[in-house]
Amino acid sequence: MRIVIVGLGVIGGGYAMALKEAGYDEVYGIDKNIDTLKKAKALGIIKEGYEDEKEIIKYADLIVLAVYPNLVKNFIINNKDNFKDGAIITDVTGIKQLFINEIINILPENIDFVFAHPMAGREKKGIDYATNQVFKGANFLITVTDKNKDENLDLIENLAYKMGFKNVKRICPKYHDEMIAFTSQLPHALAVALINSDIEGRNTGEFIGDSYRDLTRIANINESLWSQLFLGNKENLLQAIYNFEKELDKIKSCVENEDKETLQELFIKSSLRREKL
Amino acid sequence: MRIVIVGLGVIGGGYAMALKEAGYDEVYGIDKNIDTLKKAKALGIIKEGYEDEKEIIKYADLIVLAVYPNLVKNFIINNKDNFKDGAIITDVTGIKQLFINEIINILPENIDFVFAHPMAGREKKGIDYATNQVFKGANFLITVTDKNKDENLDLIENLAYKMGFKNVKRICPKYHDEMIAFTSQLPHALAVALINSDIEGRNTGEFIGDSYRDLTRIANINESLWSQLFLGNKENLLQAIYNFEKELDKIKSCVENEDKETLQELFIKSSLRREKL
Repeated sequence: MRIVIVGLGVIGGGYAMALKEAGYDEVYGIDKNIDTLKKAKALGIIKEGYEDEKEIIKYADLIVLAVYPNLVKNFIINNKDNFKDGAIITDVTGIKQLFINEIINILPENIDFVFAHPMAGREKKGIDYATNQVFKGANFLITVTDKNKDENLDLIENLAYKMGFKNVKRICPKYHDEMIAFTSQLPHALAVALINSDIEGRNTGEFIGDSYRDLTRIANINESLWSQLFLGNKENLLQAIYNFEKELDKIKSCVENEDKETLQELFIKSSLRREKL
Repeated sequence: MRIVIVGLGVIGGGYAMALKEAGYDEVYGIDKNIDTLKKAKALGIIKEGYEDEKEIIKYADLIVLAVYPNLVKNFIINNKDNFKDGAIITDVTGIKQLFINEIINILPENIDFVFAHPMAGREKKGIDYATNQVFKGANFLITVTDKNKDENLDLIENLAYKMGFKNVKRICPKYHDEMIAFTSQLPHALAVALINSDIEGRNTGEFIGDSYRDLTRIANINESLWSQLFLGNKENLLQAIYNFEKELDKIKSCVENEDKETLQELFIKSSLRREKL
Protein backbone atom coordinates (compact mmCIF):
# COMPACT_ATOMS: atom_id res chain seq x y z
CA MET A 1 0.00 0.00 0.00
CA ARG A 2 1.41 3.35 -1.10
CA ILE A 3 0.61 6.01 1.50
CA VAL A 4 0.92 9.75 0.90
CA ILE A 5 0.82 12.13 3.87
CA VAL A 6 -0.17 15.70 3.02
CA GLY A 7 1.39 18.05 5.57
CA LEU A 8 4.33 16.85 7.63
CA GLY A 9 3.65 18.93 10.71
CA VAL A 10 3.37 17.70 14.25
CA ILE A 11 0.55 15.26 13.38
CA GLY A 12 1.52 14.33 9.81
CA GLY A 13 5.13 13.87 10.88
CA GLY A 14 3.93 11.76 13.80
CA TYR A 15 1.90 9.59 11.40
CA ALA A 16 4.99 9.07 9.23
CA MET A 17 6.97 7.99 12.29
CA ALA A 18 4.20 5.67 13.46
CA LEU A 19 3.85 4.11 10.02
CA LYS A 20 7.58 3.55 9.79
CA GLU A 21 7.58 1.87 13.20
CA ALA A 22 4.63 -0.28 12.08
CA GLY A 23 6.67 -1.49 9.11
CA TYR A 24 5.16 0.54 6.24
CA ASP A 25 7.92 1.48 3.81
CA GLU A 26 5.94 3.02 0.96
CA VAL A 27 5.22 6.32 2.67
CA TYR A 28 5.56 9.62 0.79
CA GLY A 29 5.21 13.18 1.99
CA ILE A 30 3.83 16.41 0.58
CA ASP A 31 4.65 19.72 2.21
CA LYS A 32 5.00 23.29 1.03
CA ASN A 33 8.16 23.63 3.11
CA ILE A 34 11.17 22.06 1.42
CA ASP A 35 13.16 21.93 4.66
CA THR A 36 10.40 19.86 6.26
CA LEU A 37 10.58 17.40 3.36
CA LYS A 38 14.37 17.18 3.64
CA LYS A 39 14.16 16.59 7.35
CA ALA A 40 11.51 13.88 6.95
CA LYS A 41 13.61 12.13 4.34
CA ALA A 42 16.74 12.41 6.48
CA LEU A 43 14.78 10.85 9.36
CA GLY A 44 13.88 7.99 7.04
CA ILE A 45 10.17 8.40 7.70
CA ILE A 46 9.27 9.14 4.06
CA LYS A 47 10.62 7.51 0.94
CA GLU A 48 10.35 10.74 -1.03
CA GLY A 49 9.00 14.23 -0.52
CA TYR A 50 7.10 16.47 -2.93
CA GLU A 51 6.23 20.14 -2.96
CA ASP A 52 3.79 19.62 -5.81
CA GLU A 53 1.04 17.19 -4.84
CA LYS A 54 0.13 16.47 -8.48
CA GLU A 55 3.32 14.44 -8.88
CA ILE A 56 2.44 11.76 -6.36
CA ILE A 57 -1.29 11.89 -5.52
CA LYS A 58 -2.26 9.88 -8.57
CA TYR A 59 -0.20 6.92 -7.33
CA ALA A 60 -1.54 6.92 -3.78
CA ASP A 61 -3.63 4.04 -2.38
CA LEU A 62 -4.13 5.97 0.86
CA ILE A 63 -3.91 9.73 1.33
CA VAL A 64 -3.63 11.18 4.84
CA LEU A 65 -4.65 14.83 4.96
CA ALA A 66 -2.79 16.24 7.94
CA VAL A 67 -3.63 19.85 7.17
CA TYR A 68 -5.64 22.65 8.75
CA PRO A 69 -9.45 22.23 8.70
CA ASN A 70 -9.98 24.96 6.10
CA LEU A 71 -7.66 23.23 3.61
CA VAL A 72 -9.37 19.84 3.53
CA LYS A 73 -12.16 20.76 1.13
CA ASN A 74 -9.86 22.64 -1.24
CA PHE A 75 -7.54 19.67 -1.45
CA ILE A 76 -10.41 17.53 -2.71
CA ILE A 77 -11.53 20.19 -5.21
CA ASN A 78 -8.01 20.66 -6.55
CA ASN A 79 -7.30 16.96 -6.90
CA LYS A 80 -10.63 15.42 -7.76
CA ASP A 81 -9.47 14.37 -11.24
CA ASN A 82 -6.10 13.26 -9.96
CA PHE A 83 -6.91 10.40 -7.55
CA LYS A 84 -6.08 6.79 -8.23
CA ASP A 85 -9.17 4.64 -8.80
CA GLY A 86 -10.31 3.18 -5.46
CA ALA A 87 -8.07 5.40 -3.38
CA ILE A 88 -8.89 5.98 0.29
CA ILE A 89 -8.54 9.41 1.85
CA THR A 90 -8.44 10.05 5.57
CA ASP A 91 -7.89 13.19 7.62
CA VAL A 92 -6.84 14.14 11.15
CA THR A 93 -9.14 17.11 11.74
CA GLY A 94 -10.55 17.89 15.16
CA ILE A 95 -13.97 18.94 13.85
CA LYS A 96 -16.08 17.18 11.26
CA GLN A 97 -19.45 18.75 10.48
CA LEU A 98 -17.78 21.85 9.04
CA PHE A 99 -16.88 20.11 5.77
CA ILE A 100 -18.04 16.51 5.82
CA ASN A 101 -21.25 16.97 3.81
CA GLU A 102 -19.68 19.32 1.31
CA ILE A 103 -16.87 16.86 0.70
CA ILE A 104 -19.19 13.92 0.24
CA ASN A 105 -21.03 15.94 -2.39
CA ILE A 106 -17.92 16.71 -4.45
CA LEU A 107 -15.99 13.47 -3.89
CA PRO A 108 -15.61 11.22 -6.99
CA GLU A 109 -17.70 8.01 -6.69
CA ASN A 110 -14.64 5.75 -6.80
CA ILE A 111 -12.92 7.47 -3.86
CA ASP A 112 -13.72 6.75 -0.20
CA PHE A 113 -13.05 9.40 2.47
CA VAL A 114 -12.79 7.89 5.95
CA PHE A 115 -12.94 10.88 8.28
CA ALA A 116 -10.78 10.34 11.36
CA HIS A 117 -9.59 12.19 14.43
CA PRO A 118 -6.50 10.98 16.27
CA MET A 119 -6.95 12.38 19.78
CA ALA A 120 -3.36 13.26 20.45
CA GLY A 121 -1.35 16.32 19.73
CA ARG A 122 1.20 18.69 21.04
CA GLU A 123 1.21 22.39 21.90
CA LYS A 124 4.03 23.01 19.42
CA LYS A 125 3.80 22.92 15.66
CA GLY A 126 6.08 21.63 12.92
CA ILE A 127 8.01 18.45 12.19
CA ASP A 128 10.64 19.27 14.84
CA TYR A 129 8.02 18.51 17.49
CA ALA A 130 6.47 15.51 15.73
CA THR A 131 6.54 12.23 17.61
CA ASN A 132 4.48 9.07 17.42
CA GLN A 133 4.86 8.60 21.17
CA VAL A 134 1.76 10.73 21.78
CA PHE A 135 -0.38 8.23 19.83
CA LYS A 136 0.46 5.35 22.14
CA GLY A 137 -2.52 4.59 24.35
CA ALA A 138 -4.57 7.44 22.85
CA ASN A 139 -8.15 7.49 21.54
CA PHE A 140 -8.89 7.45 17.81
CA LEU A 141 -12.27 8.47 16.44
CA ILE A 142 -13.74 7.56 13.05
CA THR A 143 -16.78 9.55 11.97
CA VAL A 144 -18.67 7.26 9.66
CA THR A 145 -20.74 8.43 6.66
CA ASP A 146 -23.15 6.24 4.71
CA LYS A 147 -20.79 6.41 1.72
CA ASN A 148 -18.00 4.59 3.58
CA LYS A 149 -17.20 1.00 2.60
CA ASP A 150 -16.85 -1.36 5.55
CA GLU A 151 -13.53 -2.69 4.27
CA ASN A 152 -12.09 0.84 4.22
CA LEU A 153 -13.37 1.63 7.72
CA ASP A 154 -11.69 -1.59 8.85
CA LEU A 155 -8.48 -0.63 7.08
CA ILE A 156 -8.26 2.75 8.85
CA GLU A 157 -9.22 1.18 12.17
CA ASN A 158 -6.49 -1.44 11.85
CA LEU A 159 -3.99 1.16 10.78
CA ALA A 160 -4.80 3.21 13.90
CA TYR A 161 -4.16 0.22 16.13
CA LYS A 162 -0.90 -0.51 14.29
CA MET A 163 0.16 3.13 14.85
CA GLY A 164 -0.27 2.63 18.59
CA PHE A 165 -3.74 4.02 19.32
CA LYS A 166 -5.46 2.11 22.06
CA ASN A 167 -9.14 2.66 21.51
CA VAL A 168 -10.79 3.20 18.10
CA LYS A 169 -14.40 4.29 18.10
CA ARG A 170 -16.83 4.77 15.20
CA ILE A 171 -19.43 7.50 15.65
CA CYS A 172 -21.49 9.95 13.66
CA PRO A 173 -20.07 13.41 12.85
CA LYS A 174 -22.72 15.21 14.89
CA TYR A 175 -21.95 13.34 18.12
CA HIS A 176 -18.22 13.69 17.44
CA ASP A 177 -18.40 17.47 17.27
CA GLU A 178 -20.62 17.67 20.34
CA MET A 179 -18.26 15.53 22.43
CA ILE A 180 -15.13 17.23 21.14
CA ALA A 181 -16.51 20.65 22.03
CA PHE A 182 -16.65 19.42 25.60
CA THR A 183 -13.54 17.23 25.92
CA SER A 184 -11.13 19.23 23.79
CA GLN A 185 -12.24 22.74 22.88
CA LEU A 186 -13.73 23.71 26.24
CA PRO A 187 -10.54 22.71 28.14
CA HIS A 188 -8.52 24.86 25.72
CA ALA A 189 -10.89 27.80 26.27
CA LEU A 190 -10.56 27.41 30.04
CA ALA A 191 -6.77 27.19 29.94
CA VAL A 192 -6.55 30.33 27.81
CA ALA A 193 -9.01 32.26 30.00
CA LEU A 194 -7.23 31.11 33.17
CA ILE A 195 -3.78 32.35 32.20
CA ASN A 196 -5.14 35.49 30.55
CA SER A 197 -7.00 36.35 33.77
CA ASP A 198 -3.72 36.75 35.66
CA ILE A 199 -3.04 40.32 36.66
CA GLU A 200 -0.21 41.85 34.65
CA GLY A 201 3.14 42.21 36.39
CA ARG A 202 2.79 39.59 39.11
CA ASN A 203 5.59 37.07 39.62
CA THR A 204 3.07 34.26 39.30
CA GLY A 205 5.64 31.57 38.57
CA GLU A 206 6.83 31.69 42.18
CA PHE A 207 3.36 30.88 43.47
CA ILE A 208 2.41 27.89 41.38
CA GLY A 209 2.15 24.19 42.02
CA ASP A 210 1.34 21.35 39.65
CA SER A 211 -2.31 22.33 39.35
CA TYR A 212 -1.68 25.70 37.67
CA ARG A 213 1.04 24.16 35.53
CA ASP A 214 -1.27 21.36 34.35
CA LEU A 215 -4.26 23.58 33.75
CA THR A 216 -2.35 26.10 31.65
CA ARG A 217 -0.20 23.71 29.58
CA ILE A 218 -2.60 23.90 26.64
CA ALA A 219 -2.84 27.70 26.92
CA ASN A 220 0.23 27.55 24.69
CA ILE A 221 -1.89 27.12 21.62
CA ASN A 222 -1.55 27.27 17.83
CA GLU A 223 -3.76 30.28 17.14
CA SER A 224 -4.35 29.59 13.43
CA LEU A 225 -5.48 26.00 13.98
CA TRP A 226 -7.52 26.54 17.12
CA SER A 227 -9.36 29.63 15.91
CA GLN A 228 -10.56 27.45 13.01
CA LEU A 229 -11.55 24.64 15.36
CA PHE A 230 -13.43 26.99 17.71
CA LEU A 231 -15.30 28.86 14.98
CA GLY A 232 -15.93 25.70 12.98
CA ASN A 233 -17.76 24.13 15.91
CA LYS A 234 -19.47 27.28 17.15
CA GLU A 235 -22.81 26.05 18.47
CA ASN A 236 -21.42 23.00 20.26
CA LEU A 237 -18.62 24.98 21.86
CA LEU A 238 -20.98 27.70 23.05
CA GLN A 239 -23.27 25.06 24.57
CA ALA A 240 -20.29 23.47 26.35
CA ILE A 241 -19.26 26.88 27.70
CA TYR A 242 -22.81 27.57 28.96
CA ASN A 243 -22.93 24.20 30.72
CA PHE A 244 -19.55 24.92 32.29
CA GLU A 245 -20.62 28.39 33.43
CA LYS A 246 -23.64 26.90 35.19
CA GLU A 247 -21.38 24.60 37.19
CA LEU A 248 -18.92 27.38 37.99
CA ASP A 249 -21.86 29.48 39.17
CA LYS A 250 -22.80 26.72 41.61
CA ILE A 251 -19.32 26.83 43.13
CA LYS A 252 -19.41 30.62 43.22
CA SER A 253 -22.77 30.64 45.01
CA CYS A 254 -21.46 28.19 47.60
CA VAL A 255 -18.48 30.43 48.29
CA GLU A 256 -20.59 33.61 48.36
CA ASN A 257 -23.12 32.03 50.74
CA GLU A 258 -20.54 30.03 52.69
CA ASP A 259 -22.55 26.91 51.91
CA LYS A 260 -19.98 24.30 52.89
CA GLU A 261 -22.31 21.34 52.57
CA THR A 262 -23.28 21.94 48.94
CA LEU A 263 -19.68 22.76 48.09
CA GLN A 264 -18.58 19.42 49.49
CA GLU A 265 -21.30 17.68 47.46
CA LEU A 266 -19.93 19.28 44.29
CA PHE A 267 -16.42 18.10 45.21
CA ILE A 268 -17.64 14.57 45.94
CA LYS A 269 -19.42 14.47 42.58
CA SER A 270 -16.34 15.68 40.70
CA SER A 271 -14.09 13.21 42.54
CA LEU A 272 -16.33 10.27 41.68
CA ARG A 273 -16.47 11.32 38.04
CA ARG A 274 -12.71 11.73 37.85
CA GLU A 275 -12.08 8.36 39.45
CA LYS A 276 -14.47 6.71 36.98
CA LEU A 277 -12.64 8.27 34.02
CA MET B 1 16.92 19.29 66.66
CA ARG B 2 13.88 17.31 67.77
CA ILE B 3 11.10 17.65 65.22
CA VAL B 4 7.48 16.67 65.87
CA ILE B 5 5.08 16.37 62.95
CA VAL B 6 1.42 16.70 63.85
CA GLY B 7 -0.66 14.77 61.32
CA LEU B 8 1.03 12.12 59.17
CA GLY B 9 -1.22 12.45 56.14
CA VAL B 10 -0.10 12.99 52.60
CA ILE B 11 1.81 16.19 53.47
CA GLY B 12 2.94 15.36 57.03
CA GLY B 13 4.03 11.91 55.88
CA GLY B 14 5.85 13.50 52.95
CA TYR B 15 7.65 15.86 55.36
CA ALA B 16 8.74 12.88 57.47
CA MET B 17 10.13 11.18 54.36
CA ALA B 18 11.89 14.33 53.19
CA LEU B 19 13.41 14.92 56.64
CA LYS B 20 14.65 11.33 56.78
CA GLU B 21 16.25 11.69 53.36
CA ALA B 22 17.85 14.96 54.49
CA GLY B 23 19.44 13.13 57.42
CA TYR B 24 17.24 14.22 60.34
CA ASP B 25 16.84 11.31 62.74
CA GLU B 26 15.01 12.93 65.64
CA VAL B 27 11.61 13.08 63.98
CA TYR B 28 8.47 12.11 65.92
CA GLY B 29 4.88 11.84 64.77
CA ILE B 30 1.47 12.59 66.24
CA ASP B 31 -1.65 11.21 64.63
CA LYS B 32 -5.09 10.22 65.85
CA ASN B 33 -4.89 7.08 63.71
CA ILE B 34 -2.76 4.38 65.36
CA ASP B 35 -2.34 2.48 62.07
CA THR B 36 -0.83 5.58 60.51
CA LEU B 37 1.66 5.82 63.36
CA LYS B 38 2.56 2.13 63.02
CA LYS B 39 3.04 2.49 59.31
CA ALA B 40 5.24 5.59 59.72
CA LYS B 41 7.38 3.78 62.25
CA ALA B 42 7.64 0.69 60.06
CA LEU B 43 8.78 2.93 57.20
CA GLY B 44 11.46 4.32 59.49
CA ILE B 45 10.36 7.90 58.90
CA ILE B 46 9.55 8.59 62.57
CA LYS B 47 11.44 7.51 65.64
CA GLU B 48 8.25 7.17 67.65
CA GLY B 49 4.56 7.88 67.22
CA TYR B 50 2.05 9.31 69.69
CA GLU B 51 -1.71 9.52 69.75
CA ASP B 52 -1.58 11.97 72.67
CA GLU B 53 0.27 15.13 71.71
CA LYS B 54 0.90 16.10 75.35
CA GLU B 55 3.50 13.34 75.69
CA ILE B 56 5.91 14.72 73.13
CA ILE B 57 5.09 18.36 72.33
CA LYS B 58 6.94 19.64 75.40
CA TYR B 59 10.22 18.17 74.07
CA ALA B 60 9.89 19.52 70.53
CA ASP B 61 12.32 22.11 69.14
CA LEU B 62 10.30 22.31 65.95
CA ILE B 63 6.62 21.44 65.52
CA VAL B 64 5.20 20.94 62.02
CA LEU B 65 1.42 21.29 61.96
CA ALA B 66 0.33 19.22 58.97
CA VAL B 67 -3.37 19.41 59.82
CA TYR B 68 -6.51 20.90 58.29
CA PRO B 69 -6.77 24.72 58.40
CA ASN B 70 -9.51 24.73 61.06
CA LEU B 71 -7.35 22.71 63.48
CA VAL B 72 -4.32 25.00 63.55
CA LYS B 73 -5.70 27.55 66.02
CA ASN B 74 -7.09 24.91 68.36
CA PHE B 75 -3.76 23.16 68.49
CA ILE B 76 -2.15 26.35 69.78
CA ILE B 77 -4.92 26.95 72.32
CA ASN B 78 -4.74 23.37 73.61
CA ASN B 79 -0.97 23.33 73.91
CA LYS B 80 -0.03 26.89 74.81
CA ASP B 81 1.28 25.88 78.25
CA ASN B 82 2.95 22.78 76.88
CA PHE B 83 5.57 24.13 74.48
CA LYS B 84 9.31 23.96 75.08
CA ASP B 85 10.87 27.38 75.69
CA GLY B 86 12.04 28.80 72.35
CA ALA B 87 10.21 26.23 70.25
CA ILE B 88 9.43 26.98 66.61
CA ILE B 89 6.10 26.04 65.06
CA THR B 90 5.44 25.88 61.36
CA ASP B 91 2.41 24.79 59.33
CA VAL B 92 1.61 23.66 55.80
CA THR B 93 -1.72 25.38 55.29
CA GLY B 94 -2.80 26.66 51.91
CA ILE B 95 -4.42 29.83 53.26
CA LYS B 96 -3.04 32.20 55.87
CA GLN B 97 -5.16 35.21 56.73
CA LEU B 98 -7.88 32.99 58.18
CA PHE B 99 -5.98 32.36 61.41
CA ILE B 100 -2.64 34.15 61.34
CA ASN B 101 -3.63 37.21 63.42
CA GLU B 102 -5.63 35.19 65.92
CA ILE B 103 -2.70 32.87 66.45
CA ILE B 104 -0.21 35.68 66.92
CA ASN B 105 -2.49 37.09 69.62
CA ILE B 106 -2.65 33.85 71.62
CA LEU B 107 0.85 32.55 70.98
CA PRO B 108 3.17 32.54 74.05
CA GLU B 109 5.95 35.17 73.78
CA ASN B 110 8.74 32.58 73.78
CA ILE B 111 7.30 30.62 70.82
CA ASP B 112 7.82 31.59 67.18
CA PHE B 113 5.30 30.50 64.54
CA VAL B 114 6.77 30.56 61.02
CA PHE B 115 3.77 30.18 58.73
CA ALA B 116 4.65 28.21 55.62
CA HIS B 117 2.99 26.74 52.54
CA PRO B 118 4.70 23.94 50.64
CA MET B 119 3.21 24.18 47.15
CA ALA B 120 2.99 20.49 46.46
CA GLY B 121 0.35 17.95 47.20
CA ARG B 122 -1.56 15.03 45.84
CA GLU B 123 -5.20 14.37 45.05
CA LYS B 124 -5.27 11.45 47.48
CA LYS B 125 -5.19 11.66 51.26
CA GLY B 126 -3.46 9.59 53.94
CA ILE B 127 0.03 8.27 54.57
CA ASP B 128 -0.35 5.57 51.89
CA TYR B 129 -0.11 8.32 49.28
CA ALA B 130 2.59 10.36 51.03
CA THR B 131 5.81 10.90 49.10
CA ASN B 132 8.55 13.50 49.30
CA GLN B 133 9.04 13.25 45.51
CA VAL B 134 6.37 15.94 45.02
CA PHE B 135 8.47 18.47 46.95
CA LYS B 136 11.42 18.19 44.58
CA GLY B 137 11.60 21.29 42.45
CA ALA B 138 8.45 22.77 44.00
CA ASN B 139 7.78 26.26 45.36
CA PHE B 140 7.73 26.95 49.10
CA LEU B 141 6.15 30.08 50.53
CA ILE B 142 6.82 31.63 53.93
CA THR B 143 4.33 34.25 55.09
CA VAL B 144 6.28 36.49 57.40
CA THR B 145 4.80 38.26 60.44
CA ASP B 146 6.54 41.02 62.43
CA LYS B 147 6.86 38.63 65.37
CA ASN B 148 9.13 36.23 63.45
CA LYS B 149 12.81 36.09 64.34
CA ASP B 150 15.17 36.20 61.37
CA GLU B 151 17.07 33.16 62.56
CA ASN B 152 13.85 31.12 62.65
CA LEU B 153 12.80 32.26 59.19
CA ASP B 154 16.26 31.21 58.00
CA LEU B 155 15.90 27.86 59.72
CA ILE B 156 12.59 27.06 57.98
CA GLU B 157 13.91 28.32 54.67
CA ASN B 158 16.99 26.10 54.91
CA LEU B 159 14.89 23.16 55.97
CA ALA B 160 12.68 23.62 52.90
CA TYR B 161 15.71 23.57 50.62
CA LYS B 162 17.03 20.48 52.39
CA MET B 163 13.66 18.79 51.87
CA GLY B 164 14.01 19.34 48.12
CA PHE B 165 12.01 22.51 47.46
CA LYS B 166 13.55 24.59 44.73
CA ASN B 167 12.35 28.10 45.34
CA VAL B 168 11.57 29.58 48.78
CA LYS B 169 9.85 32.94 48.85
CA ARG B 170 8.98 35.21 51.79
CA ILE B 171 5.82 37.26 51.42
CA CYS B 172 3.08 38.83 53.48
CA PRO B 173 -0.07 36.80 54.30
CA LYS B 174 -2.35 39.12 52.32
CA TYR B 175 -0.40 38.74 49.07
CA HIS B 176 -0.08 35.01 49.70
CA ASP B 177 -3.83 34.49 49.91
CA GLU B 178 -4.46 36.69 46.89
CA MET B 179 -1.97 34.78 44.73
CA ILE B 180 -3.05 31.36 45.98
CA ALA B 181 -6.68 32.12 45.17
CA PHE B 182 -5.54 32.53 41.58
CA THR B 183 -2.84 29.87 41.18
CA SER B 184 -4.34 27.11 43.30
CA GLN B 185 -7.98 27.56 44.26
CA LEU B 186 -9.25 28.90 40.94
CA PRO B 187 -7.72 25.94 38.99
CA HIS B 188 -9.43 23.55 41.40
CA ALA B 189 -12.76 25.35 40.93
CA LEU B 190 -12.36 25.14 37.14
CA ALA B 191 -11.46 21.45 37.19
CA VAL B 192 -14.48 20.64 39.35
CA ALA B 193 -16.85 22.74 37.23
CA LEU B 194 -15.45 21.24 34.02
CA ILE B 195 -16.03 17.61 34.93
CA ASN B 196 -19.35 18.36 36.65
CA SER B 197 -20.58 20.07 33.47
CA ASP B 198 -20.38 16.80 31.54
CA ILE B 199 -23.80 15.49 30.57
CA GLU B 200 -24.75 12.40 32.56
CA GLY B 201 -24.53 9.06 30.78
CA ARG B 202 -22.05 9.92 28.04
CA ASN B 203 -19.07 7.62 27.46
CA THR B 204 -16.77 10.60 27.77
CA GLY B 205 -13.63 8.54 28.43
CA GLU B 206 -13.60 7.40 24.81
CA PHE B 207 -13.44 10.98 23.55
CA ILE B 208 -10.64 12.43 25.63
CA GLY B 209 -7.07 13.36 24.96
CA ASP B 210 -4.39 14.65 27.29
CA SER B 211 -6.01 18.06 27.66
CA TYR B 212 -9.17 16.81 29.37
CA ARG B 213 -7.15 14.39 31.46
CA ASP B 214 -4.79 17.16 32.61
CA LEU B 215 -7.51 19.69 33.29
CA THR B 216 -9.61 17.33 35.41
CA ARG B 217 -6.85 15.63 37.41
CA ILE B 218 -7.43 17.92 40.39
CA ALA B 219 -11.22 17.46 40.17
CA ASN B 220 -10.48 14.44 42.33
CA ILE B 221 -10.40 16.59 45.43
CA ASN B 222 -10.45 16.15 49.21
CA GLU B 223 -13.80 17.78 49.99
CA SER B 224 -13.16 18.46 53.68
CA LEU B 225 -9.85 20.21 53.10
CA TRP B 226 -10.79 22.15 50.00
CA SER B 227 -14.14 23.40 51.27
CA GLN B 228 -12.18 24.94 54.18
CA LEU B 229 -9.62 26.44 51.80
CA PHE B 230 -12.30 27.90 49.50
CA LEU B 231 -14.44 29.39 52.28
CA GLY B 232 -11.41 30.54 54.25
CA ASN B 233 -10.24 32.65 51.32
CA LYS B 234 -13.65 33.76 50.14
CA GLU B 235 -13.07 37.31 48.88
CA ASN B 236 -9.85 36.51 47.03
CA LEU B 237 -11.31 33.41 45.40
CA LEU B 238 -14.43 35.26 44.27
CA GLN B 239 -12.27 38.00 42.77
CA ALA B 240 -10.19 35.38 40.93
CA ILE B 241 -13.39 33.77 39.59
CA TYR B 242 -14.72 37.16 38.41
CA ASN B 243 -11.45 37.90 36.61
CA PHE B 244 -11.56 34.48 34.99
CA GLU B 245 -15.19 34.90 33.90
CA LYS B 246 -14.29 38.17 32.19
CA GLU B 247 -11.65 36.38 30.12
CA LEU B 248 -13.95 33.46 29.31
CA ASP B 249 -16.57 35.99 28.21
CA LYS B 250 -14.06 37.45 25.75
CA ILE B 251 -13.57 34.01 24.17
CA LYS B 252 -17.32 33.41 24.14
CA SER B 253 -17.95 36.74 22.39
CA CYS B 254 -15.35 35.93 19.76
CA VAL B 255 -17.03 32.60 19.04
CA GLU B 256 -20.53 34.11 19.03
CA ASN B 257 -19.46 36.91 16.69
CA GLU B 258 -17.06 34.75 14.67
CA ASP B 259 -14.33 37.27 15.43
CA LYS B 260 -11.32 35.23 14.39
CA GLU B 261 -8.83 38.06 14.71
CA THR B 262 -9.55 38.85 18.37
CA LEU B 263 -9.69 35.14 19.18
CA GLN B 264 -6.22 34.69 17.72
CA GLU B 265 -4.98 37.65 19.77
CA LEU B 266 -6.27 35.98 22.94
CA PHE B 267 -4.48 32.75 21.94
CA ILE B 268 -1.24 34.60 21.20
CA LYS B 269 -1.43 36.34 24.59
CA SER B 270 -2.01 33.06 26.43
CA SER B 271 0.78 31.32 24.53
CA LEU B 272 3.28 34.06 25.38
CA ARG B 273 2.26 33.98 29.04
CA ARG B 274 2.56 30.18 29.19
CA GLU B 275 5.97 30.22 27.53
CA LYS B 276 7.17 32.82 30.02
CA LEU B 277 6.02 30.71 32.96
